[in-house]
Amino acid sequence: MHIESETWTDAEQTETNLALLPVGSTEQHGPHAPLGTDTLNAEAVAERAADEYDGEVVVAPAVPVGVAEEHRAFSGTLWTSESTFRDYVRDVVGSLAHHGWDRVVLVNGHGGNIAALREVAGRISRHDEAYAVPFTWFDEVGEHSSDMGHGGPLETALLQHANPETVHEDRLDSAAENGSERWGDWQGRVNLAFDADEFTENGVVGDPREGSAELGETLLTAAADALVDLLDAVAARQPGPRDD
Amino acid sequence: MHIESETWTDAEQTETNLALLPVGSTEQHGPHAPLGTDTLNAEAVAERAADEYDGEVVVAPAVPVGVAEEHRAFSGTLWTSESTFRDYVRDVVGSLAHHGWDRVVLVNGHGGNIAALREVAGRISRHDEAYAVPFTWFDEVGEHSSDMGHGGPLETALLQHANPETVHEDRLDSAAENGSERWGDWQGRVNLAFDADEFTENGVVGDPREGSAELGETLLTAAADALVDLLDAVAARQPGPRDD
Amino acid sequence: MHIESETWTDAEQTETNLALLPVGSTEQHGPHAPLGTDTLNAEAVAERAADEYDGEVVVAPAVPVGVAEEHRAFSGTLWTSESTFRDYVRDVVGSLAHHGWDRVVLVNGHGGNIAALREVAGRISRHDEAYAVPFTWFDEVGEHSSDMGHGGPLETALLQHANPETVHEDRLDSAAENGSERWGDWQGRVNLAFDADEFTENGVVGDPREGSAELGETLLTAAADALVDLLDAVAARQPGPRDD
Amino acid sequence: MHIESETWTDAEQTETNLALLPVGSTEQHGPHAPLGTDTLNAEAVAERAADEYDGEVVVAPAVPVGVAEEHRAFSGTLWTSESTFRDYVRDVVGSLAHHGWDRVVLVNGHGGNIAALREVAGRISRHDEAYAVPFTWFDEVGEHSSDMGHGGPLETALLQHANPETVHEDRLDSAAENGSERWGDWQGRVNLAFDADEFTENGVVGDPREGSAELGETLLTAAADALVDLLDAVAARQPGPRDD
Amino acid sequence: MHIESETWTDAEQTETNLALLPVGSTEQHGPHAPLGTDTLNAEAVAERAADEYDGEVVVAPAVPVGVAEEHRAFSGTLWTSESTFRDYVRDVVGSLAHHGWDRVVLVNGHGGNIAALREVAGRISRHDEAYAVPFTWFDEVGEHSSDMGHGGPLETALLQHANPETVHEDRLDSAAENGSERWGDWQGRVNLAFDADEFTENGVVGDPREGSAELGETLLTAAADALVDLLDAVAARQPGPRDD
Amino acid sequence: MHIESETWTDAEQTETNLALLPVGSTEQHGPHAPLGTDTLNAEAVAERAADEYDGEVVVAPAVPVGVAEEHRAFSGTLWTSESTFRDYVRDVVGSLAHHGWDRVVLVNGHGGNIAALREVAGRISRHDEAYAVPFTWFDEVGEHSSDMGHGGPLETALLQHANPETVHEDRLDSAAENGSERWGDWQGRVNLAFDADEFTENGVVGDPREGSAELGETLLTAAADALVDLLDAVAARQPGPRDD
Repeated sequence: MHIESETWTDAEQTETNLALLPVGSTEQHGPHAPLGTDTLNAEAVAERAADEYDGEVVVAPAVPVGVAEEHRAFSGTLWTSESTFRDYVRDVVGSLAHHGWDRVVLVNGHGGNIAALREVAGRISRHDEAYAVPFTWFDEVGEHSSDMGHGGPLETALLQHANPETVHEDRLDSAAENGSERWGDWQGRVNLAFDADEFTENGVVGDPREGSAELGETLLTAAADALVDLLDAVAARQPGPRDD
Repeated sequence: MHIESETWTDAEQTETNLALLPVGSTEQHGPHAPLGTDTLNAEAVAERAADEYDGEVVVAPAVPVGVAEEHRAFSGTLWTSESTFRDYVRDVVGSLAHHGWDRVVLVNGHGGNIAALREVAGRISRHDEAYAVPFTWFDEVGEHSSDMGHGGPLETALLQHANPETVHEDRLDSAAENGSERWGDWQGRVNLAFDADEFTENGVVGDPREGSAELGETLLTAAADALVDLLDAVAARQPGPRDD
Repeated sequence: MHIESETWTDAEQTETNLALLPVGSTEQHGPHAPLGTDTLNAEAVAERAADEYDGEVVVAPAVPVGVAEEHRAFSGTLWTSESTFRDYVRDVVGSLAHHGWDRVVLVNGHGGNIAALREVAGRISRHDEAYAVPFTWFDEVGEHSSDMGHGGPLETALLQHANPETVHEDRLDSAAENGSERWGDWQGRVNLAFDADEFTENGVVGDPREGSAELGETLLTAAADALVDLLDAVAARQPGPRDD
Repeated sequence: MHIESETWTDAEQTETNLALLPVGSTEQHGPHAPLGTDTLNAEAVAERAADEYDGEVVVAPAVPVGVAEEHRAFSGTLWTSESTFRDYVRDVVGSLAHHGWDRVVLVNGHGGNIAALREVAGRISRHDEAYAVPFTWFDEVGEHSSDMGHGGPLETALLQHANPETVHEDRLDSAAENGSERWGDWQGRVNLAFDADEFTENGVVGDPREGSAELGETLLTAAADALVDLLDAVAARQPGPRDD
Repeated sequence: MHIESETWTDAEQTETNLALLPVGSTEQHGPHAPLGTDTLNAEAVAERAADEYDGEVVVAPAVPVGVAEEHRAFSGTLWTSESTFRDYVRDVVGSLAHHGWDRVVLVNGHGGNIAALREVAGRISRHDEAYAVPFTWFDEVGEHSSDMGHGGPLETALLQHANPETVHEDRLDSAAENGSERWGDWQGRVNLAFDADEFTENGVVGDPREGSAELGETLLTAAADALVDLLDAVAARQPGPRDD
Repeated sequence: MHIESETWTDAEQTETNLALLPVGSTEQHGPHAPLGTDTLNAEAVAERAADEYDGEVVVAPAVPVGVAEEHRAFSGTLWTSESTFRDYVRDVVGSLAHHGWDRVVLVNGHGGNIAALREVAGRISRHDEAYAVPFTWFDEVGEHSSDMGHGGPLETALLQHANPETVHEDRLDSAAENGSERWGDWQGRVNLAFDADEFTENGVVGDPREGSAELGETLLTAAADALVDLLDAVAARQPGPRDD
């Protein structure tokens, strides 16, 4: 059930306490992939998992702008502060819980959101009348996860499968050649860079030519399966502050 | 140019300082219209105006959740606090301005957002490096504006024209019969109610049967024309704090 | 019962749960009317209504500074941010409610306060142990309300009746001649201006010469009567968060 | 020049950078003195000093509610959080400075405000474009300062002189007999109490019968003289952040 | 029991609801005493009192940075805003109370912290599930308290006794000769200065040569005795919001 | 140069812009290791690196309480909210930068602090007049990093080397036997647990018997070497907001 497409009277008929909140970003993904890549991919995974899940799951409208200031040097990138982002997610989860959908998976499509989502999920789960946990799709695709870059093979592949019209196939060579191989500017295990343009000329990390619609289908299946399993686990959690 | 559909390299080619930020809401619109009504309508108006405008205009992804706590009694309604909402809008406008799109119209589809948008637009325009102003489409349709309710003729008509598949035509009679004629619970000019269910049983205000796809087209044209005129006026404004 | 004039032992004797909080502003009102116009007028209406009401009503000391940054170009105008203003009102209402006066009308004299007062009243009424609602006197004077400007006939008239020594009668011609006819700099229904000096040279909107002490008496009676009726309605409300 | 009584055009004629902001409180002062005691006394001192000062001084409208939660057990006491109070004072001082009155004395009538005023004055003077400093009248009356209680001889005397109609002379015996001799519930130098009703039955500390209109005149003169001297010192300060 | 030195299993064995939170500062103390003076002294007093107290007392790790912006002109001085400082103290006290140590004395070594500690203690004691009260050691040494300066005899003496290696004895003459006699730049009872370098060349107030290890022992004994007495008084307090 | 041990006059003599801010935590580390483990270890690494670095480095006093609410079920654990923690770190770094030490490494000893430190370092480095970057010692010990648990071999070993008196060697068997092998309660890559007691009985993760003083020396050397290299890299960074 996509909330925004239903009426309130239909929403009221749902018999579930499970909800998915897709969390995207509007940020550069190289010369070949759209600024909305993370939102599209998060929505695709959420939608597939909701379809496959053996039970009702509510899907909220995606958060379209996230923690992306690090991409500010690239035109079109939008962002909020981490604090605003957390407040927004917490408020939305609170209103979901108000209607009884109080076990919420934050289906995330952007690496920059991960830490802020974990923090706000902890605050919600410890102190509010809800349980929330983040799920980042590209961390849940088995061994493929190690190929994650930025605008690289994984993200491009999922777009090629689920939203193929959004990828500029004719720019893949250029995307690969002017990108970088690794995220960050590292000294030991410390990333010295706070802006992506410090280490990638065109915003790309990884070789998007290694992506394909077939790979995209594989990734989508893997991520959605993992999310379905997570929904089962989340359904068994008890929302609300602990009584000690 | 819809930001989320473009690559950053294409976004960088735009030669404009004008942007539209559609602002919606996810909230009950009666038994016949979807929870996403306000977002869909704001996007429709923004898109039409951007198409018609004689010059480039950037369109940001819509804000999907707004100031809607007053509808909390109706299932599926989502909301943030006014404070979170303002922070979100301010941050997004700030990032638009960072790329040179520093004259921004907030294209609004929800009455409950109006005051918060005016407040944040004032803060931006007086203190940030941008100029922003809110535009609420149903206030800009001439004499039709007086028919505005909630889930009533205007909102329903625009959906019937621009997103007809979202309207449950078979529920219009029920929507009309169990709604109310007027927004609020009034003593003189004071609305005593802070929750919509205090004055409408099914969430509807006004008679949605008075809407039609034809009326929707008329409304869309009127609102988009008004927005185009506004863009001309905004283009002439000087962003940034005043020097006195 | 004006709180500030009574002792706590006398305050404790009151048998009511009704309170009035006058909310003013210190801001330019043209060359003829004092910067404290809005406070004086809000106090006058609150006092008259409290006298006329058939029952006890507590009157709190007026909030002297409000949301008036738009008048900053005119000397002597004071303001707080909207956020500070709301916090102040919420805290004061909270302490009124602490003593059992938990149904509070915010008797407002300034248009710039309206949106912020509605927002904070909603927050109080939905989430705190009190019910609060704003009442703006010049919106409650029947057909006269359409003559509202700024430092124009209505505000000047009420001063001429209730605080005549504060009006410079000899400057009324100048006030009228260098003012403007309409509030704002409009493109369609959108006010492009965030500062009053963008559309009025001397700060005046409307012709204060149309005011008179007689009109002031009429306005005061009308507004106080409306406020008395509102007190009856508010007395019937149940403060505190809803149990759903 | 009392800002609220003047027009903006007259305010604009002032040739000074000095301002006084009276800061009061609405809180119990025993059975004999009004809840508005601190505001009345702060205003009296500010007014006298402004009259006596050899030069122009702007007087802003008094802050009527302050840091008084410790008196919450006594009916009619109003308060804001310390944080709201500081924000309010900082915003008002900021708007005074906007008009060129950027050297501001916070003329305080309430002991509970002292720490919060010193903190906000430090913030303003170090970081804003203004210089502000608090002045508490009963600390500036020479050896009389040691008689300060609460609703005791000093505060009562100043009321008896400047606002005699507000004092219930017939309740002075009762006030004295059911009050306490000392503020606080002390263990060594630590006040264990956070509520005044922990150590005073009727809210009074000290014997108000030791006050008189004559003493009030003496106190007013002493405090106003000290404030005049302070204005000279403040006039010599340089507002705005330090350049190091 | 020093929390940081014990394991959680040992901490769990404590049978007390009393805790001490030493609160220091990192700030200049002249050319002869270390920047950590206030922290060292607060810890010394807390430790001695915990040892002497007839019962268990938990000692939390000291807050090392406090409200010290006034010393910013002197190298090495660290500070947080008052607001951050209060939040930090409130959070730490909240976690102490979570484990049952809900009667907390804030053992303070820095004058600049006093007001902020009193404010946060009030907030905790009135609204949280704990009772907290500040204790400033140099205010609790009898008649010696009147010799308090800054880096002067009292603070230097306590260092000489408890941490003698930290004092540069060979710089005491220089410290005394380039310091000042009195804290502040006074007009009447108002301190005009917000920065210590406005009234002391080398940061010292008072003559540190009047200190000695013997005096330090005397001070430590006096302060610790006072703190022991306070612990008895605090043990008798009831934590948590009042029921009225 | 340890700031708290030096006088301001000595601090002023330093000729460096490099600073280390150790960041610890007070939280359970099993039955064998002290609650202050993370602070002790962060300090040990910072101290060693400062000693070894070929140039001056300022060392600030350690932050003793961090982001540790997840350990709240274990007695003695202290924590602040993430927001308070970030504010505290940002303020301290700001005051370091005020004195010219504007390139700061946050030397961290606690996994729960990592995300919050990265966030605040980004805010500082992008928007303040400083450059800051977090360094977590156990991530910088080569292949040993994979043995990191909680109160496990790495943390215990570093204590055994640098602070051997703090480890209860006689409890290591018990610590190992009642701990768990892995941090978290996992469904795929998602940790479902927000409290450590959901997956470890005594708070331990990993087998502390695998630690030793020799291993501790190895770890300290490795971490300090990595930090020395990082200091070289940080010295080459340009603090302050980017000019684009």
